Amino acid sequence: GDADAARAAAERQNTLTKPPGSLGRLEEIAVFLAQWQGRAQPALETVDILVFAGSHGVVARGVSAFPGEVTQQMVANFAAGGAAINQLAKAAGARLSVVPLEVERPTGDFTCEPAMSNAEFADAVQKGYEAVPADADLVCLGEMGIGNTTAAAAVVAALFGGGGARWVGRGSGVDDAGMRRKADAVDAALACHGSTLADPLSALRLVGGRELAAMFGAALGARHKHIPLLIDGFVCTAAVAPLARLETGGLAHALAGHVSAEAAHGKVLAELGLRPLLDLGMRLGEGSGGAVAISILRAALACHNGMATFAEAGVSGG
Amino acid sequence: GDADAARAAAERQNTLTKPPGSLGRLEEIAVFLAQWQGRAQPALETVDILVFAGSHGVVARGVSAFPGEVTQQMVANFAAGGAAINQLAKAAGARLSVVPLEVERPTGDFTCEPAMSNAEFADAVQKGYEAVPADADLVCLGEMGIGNTTAAAAVVAALFGGGGARWVGRGSGVDDAGMRRKADAVDAALACHGSTLADPLSALRLVGGRELAAMFGAALGARHKHIPLLIDGFVCTAAVAPLARLETGGLAHALAGHVSAEAAHGKVLAELGLRPLLDLGMRLGEGSGGAVAISILRAALACHNGMATFAEAGVSGG
Repeated sequence: GDADAARAAAERQNTLTKPPGSLGRLEEIAVFLAQWQGRAQPALETVDILVFAGSHGVVARGVSAFPGEVTQQMVANFAAGGAAINQLAKAAGARLSVVPLEVERPTGDFTCEPAMSNAEFADAVQKGYEAVPADADLVCLGEMGIGNTTAAAAVVAALFGGGGARWVGRGSGVDDAGMRRKADAVDAALACHGSTLADPLSALRLVGGRELAAMFGAALGARHKHIPLLIDGFVCTAAVAPLARLETGGLAHALAGHVSAEAAHGKVLAELGLRPLLDLGMRLGEGSGGAVAISILRAALACHNGMATFAEAGVSGG
Repeated sequence: GDADAARAAAERQNTLTKPPGSLGRLEEIAVFLAQWQGRAQPALETVDILVFAGSHGVVARGVSAFPGEVTQQMVANFAAGGAAINQLAKAAGARLSVVPLEVERPTGDFTCEPAMSNAEFADAVQKGYEAVPADADLVCLGEMGIGNTTAAAAVVAALFGGGGARWVGRGSGVDDAGMRRKADAVDAALACHGSTLADPLSALRLVGGRELAAMFGAALGARHKHIPLLIDGFVCTAAVAPLARLETGGLAHALAGHVSAEAAHGKVLAELGLRPLLDLGMRLGEGSGGAVAISILRAALACHNGMATFAEAGVSGG
């Protein structure tokens, strides 16, 4: 981050025609974007929403309300422009890129084997890293993958402790029996992989999924390419959480767009010290919560870059 | 409200390619707009932000961090395009109209006399009513008026009970002594006007202000013109609250855009049963919180009107 740019942005905020602090988090956002874009007057000309899709072997355990083939069907729906994220990207003035990661080939069933080999994991991370356009002013991450709230629950159980029951939720809408199957799957995975899960990257490889690995890679790519990051829901947050576990401040370039109705998401955000911008009861994934939050960032910069100062407007200070 | 349109919108939501309910409040917003626009696929082609400005005799009591002349200076800043609401209206794709209400002539000091005569009150209400364009798809209310958080506190104290200390806050940034002066002003007003404040319209006239009366009139106008209403912060909510006190459901056509950092706002929203869409720590007024929320409504309709159905997309249901 660029501390000088952040300082200059904060100073500018205090000259604008409003009581100091009265734009609340809009002011914080302007300073945050200045810090991570490295300029006192940041911009959101080019905003990229990256949606990664993957298939999950654990679906065979009955952990989702939808059949596994819906992942591929939804990738086709993204391509045809019919999904929620297509509409939300357009409304937010963002480019949408969908990156399917071998969706025809599910990961290993992590309750009893590694989700990915080292090579598969590295490949997915690299695809995520490379998907981040160097010219982006902001990158927003999203995902699609039937079964992936169970993978996310397994990852955060490995990272933050507690059994399956602490981290599973209804996902796309499972009933109570489905919830129990999800918790059992997570507990089985913890037992199967044991202490190898203590390493954050190993956890992501062993009990995560390709789209989670790719989001991790994209978050790393954004950091290296000096691009601020907007994260979405539970699965996305679980995927990038290893960055914070590997290094203090590893997610300092990230804003949380929306806290999901999936109860575990709030717990993960709290573990990471991230305060979501929105709480609209959404639980769709696809980057939908982050996409809605883009307009909050645009509002923040509209004020930051467009408002008159007290001196310019001839308004008396307090 | 149009119950048939609302029902048709809710049915449409359940056919779209997402787990039912997974767009959370975006789904509720689509149904709400259908109900109050009277069509199953509502639109936000024409969105009007109406900002009413007024001056307050109570400013002489030292209730604001800013001098009273700032109201007129800010009206000039609105006209020049330099204020926060100018930028936020542009970012939200909304028309902005600023309606100054005799800003050169402050209301009576309501701690010891009526803020407005009957004729002055009726005139301000009518100006608000008439400011609502008949062709609007949505109206968002805002205000500017140095001293008006004290007027708003007096109005809600009259409507909901409790003394000044329950309802005053820091407004544009007063210190502890300023807070005490605000609470004293409200208590003096309650003592001065006594039981005449029991009638909600009398309360608005006696201890409100011209811009509050105009927002009340605009909220009434929106209801009569079949236009859904987006309300902003503490002062705006206090101004329209009499509608709900006069008639159950009198504010059913209103969404709360944002809960202010001014602590009393959350209490008033709770009294009215309104759940704000945003909580971004803003406390500026001008319609700024409502303006930011407009993009949430746009996101809701982008999904509602633009998404493919399960049948159209060939996606398997849950």
